[in-house]
Amino acid sequence: VLTEQPPVICGIGSIVGKNEAEGPCGQWFDRSDTDDLFGQKTWEKAEGYLQREALSLALQSAGLTHPQLDLLFAGDLQNQCIASSFGLMGYNLPFVGLYGACSTMIEGLGLAAVFVAGGAAERCAAVTSSHFCTSERQFRFPLEYGGQRPPTAQWTVTGSGATVVCREDLAAGAFGRIRSVTFGRICQLGVNDINNMGAAMAPAAADVITAYFDDTGKKPSDFDFIVTGDLGSHGAEMTKKLLLLSDIDVEGHYLDCGCLIFPDREQYGCGGSGCGCSATMLNSYFLKRMAAGEYENLLFVGTGALMSPLSIFQGEVIPAVAHAVHIGR
Amino acid sequence: VLTEQPPVICGIGSIVGKNEAEGPCGQWFDRSDTDDLFGQKTWEKAEGYLQREALSLALQSAGLTHPQLDLLFAGDLQNQCIASSFGLMGYNLPFVGLYGACSTMIEGLGLAAVFVAGGAAERCAAVTSSHFCTSERQFRFPLEYGGQRPPTAQWTVTGSGATVVCREDLAAGAFGRIRSVTFGRICQLGVNDINNMGAAMAPAAADVITAYFDDTGKKPSDFDFIVTGDLGSHGAEMTKKLLLLSDIDVEGHYLDCGCLIFPDREQYGCGGSGCGCSATMLNSYFLKRMAAGEYENLLFVGTGALMSPLSIFQGEVIPAVAHAVHIGR
Repeated sequence: VLTEQPPVICGIGSIVGKNEAEGPCGQWFDRSDTDDLFGQKTWEKAEGYLQREALSLALQSAGLTHPQLDLLFAGDLQNQCIASSFGLMGYNLPFVGLYGACSTMIEGLGLAAVFVAGGAAERCAAVTSSHFCTSERQFRFPLEYGGQRPPTAQWTVTGSGATVVCREDLAAGAFGRIRSVTFGRICQLGVNDINNMGAAMAPAAADVITAYFDDTGKKPSDFDFIVTGDLGSHGAEMTKKLLLLSDIDVEGHYLDCGCLIFPDREQYGCGGSGCGCSATMLNSYFLKRMAAGEYENLLFVGTGALMSPLSIFQGEVIPAVAHAVHIGR
Repeated sequence: VLTEQPPVICGIGSIVGKNEAEGPCGQWFDRSDTDDLFGQKTWEKAEGYLQREALSLALQSAGLTHPQLDLLFAGDLQNQCIASSFGLMGYNLPFVGLYGACSTMIEGLGLAAVFVAGGAAERCAAVTSSHFCTSERQFRFPLEYGGQRPPTAQWTVTGSGATVVCREDLAAGAFGRIRSVTFGRICQLGVNDINNMGAAMAPAAADVITAYFDDTGKKPSDFDFIVTGDLGSHGAEMTKKLLLLSDIDVEGHYLDCGCLIFPDREQYGCGGSGCGCSATMLNSYFLKRMAAGEYENLLFVGTGALMSPLSIFQGEVIPAVAHAVHIGR
């Protein structure tokens, strides 16, 4: 989907936990807390709080109040996406619930761009989050169990990011403009190892990047960077190799948010993961640097693994999906 | 969201289980099976099969093949929406995953309409499903336990419905046209009884219907029927009463899919529920009758409860959301 009158990213917000704030990208995030509960009673409520705060920060940065938004696009990793529904309920805004696993930030941003570009909305926002403790409880083991992780495993980011998108003539300022949106297909190459999500998601990332370059005739050097959401170091290497099979060489023009936010392999395995990984990095590090003139063009690719614990127990493969947005200044 | 050039509903498909086929609406559904597994190994795979078949039937009825679709909008009730991801993976189409609980059919249809009306897609489809056995396993008790149900409980529909939406000039025929879409807000009035979903969802239904009439200045008598997805007899009564508080009297112009598909209170409690309830009824009974000239205007309201088993265990209320589409001939 190409946008003739590119919607403007007019507000961004990010909030993270202690580990993320102490990492190498810590300076870029708007807010953080040293306590995983963020003052709430449960981790689930804490994740809802993160979404509420991220949207509030994004609205502040856009100079808007929430009644000026037409629509929210949101989702998360928790069963039935309760971080979004409970977290954002108080805004009392029309709500479109999404499930794209870790691709949710880009899925929501893509939908927001299509709504604004097509005239269906003037201003809307995309929000998502993840939380290490809610994800471990739901997808893996109780934290108290202290399960060991294989080297291909990743570490779920505790954090939330929100983006406000509006029509050009309504924007007070611009962090960037959404020049195209590519919704991806569900892909799988037979990976069914829950501790190797990078390998499960790499085919979807490579598929949507290939589709984007095939459709537009552009090449990797047209971009400062092609950025994937949370493939981690293992998945990022696989994606580069899969792209070479389609004669697309992204060397020197490729970054992965998971590797940037948690580069310490000893502690975090292959890097950060979760909806919050791409959401916090996009809405801080990348868009703040674009606003500062450091980047001209980014191809931002959100990657999500669509399995459930039940489908894994039933021996199924891990299907994955990826969506891409071209963000230019 | 109003559409100036209304997108056309050019294809519909529905497939149901044994109970639905033997009920009073049985004649309207395209296909059914006497076995809940539909030839699959697990109920989860069976629900995926239902989505695959419903989309295939909808494509047939539109005279299209799947590569002619630009985009799929889909979701379901299973954790991480695995019925949609596994069921529709084989179509190899761009995929936008949704979570709107039982409002998913109308959420997807609304997004499809906005994409087509705004020029972001030429043809796309919305699909959703539910399955009695996957829902019981996930949200309630193992089937073998034989838990008793209170009188306000409903019965999850086993079935899937799919709708193909396209631009007017590309349509071979029309079941109806989408004249407006209203995305609803998350509402709750303190209900936290998992066996009384009708009461939890009624405030959201009333809110979006009120918003629609406030925005458009129309009145209930402008419609053959205002149709809610799966409030059941108890929720439907509550919705009528809540609407009266806003001076909207829908008496004589109101139906609920849950009451139509499972009217037998002894066996099914307050009626049918689940994403498949509104999906199968919209894509058979209602749109076939509209195509036959029996209806001129329907306001179709999908209602979804956004709790998870975990949020219920943690003592939270049940937030709900509803979306509305005005379908005219």
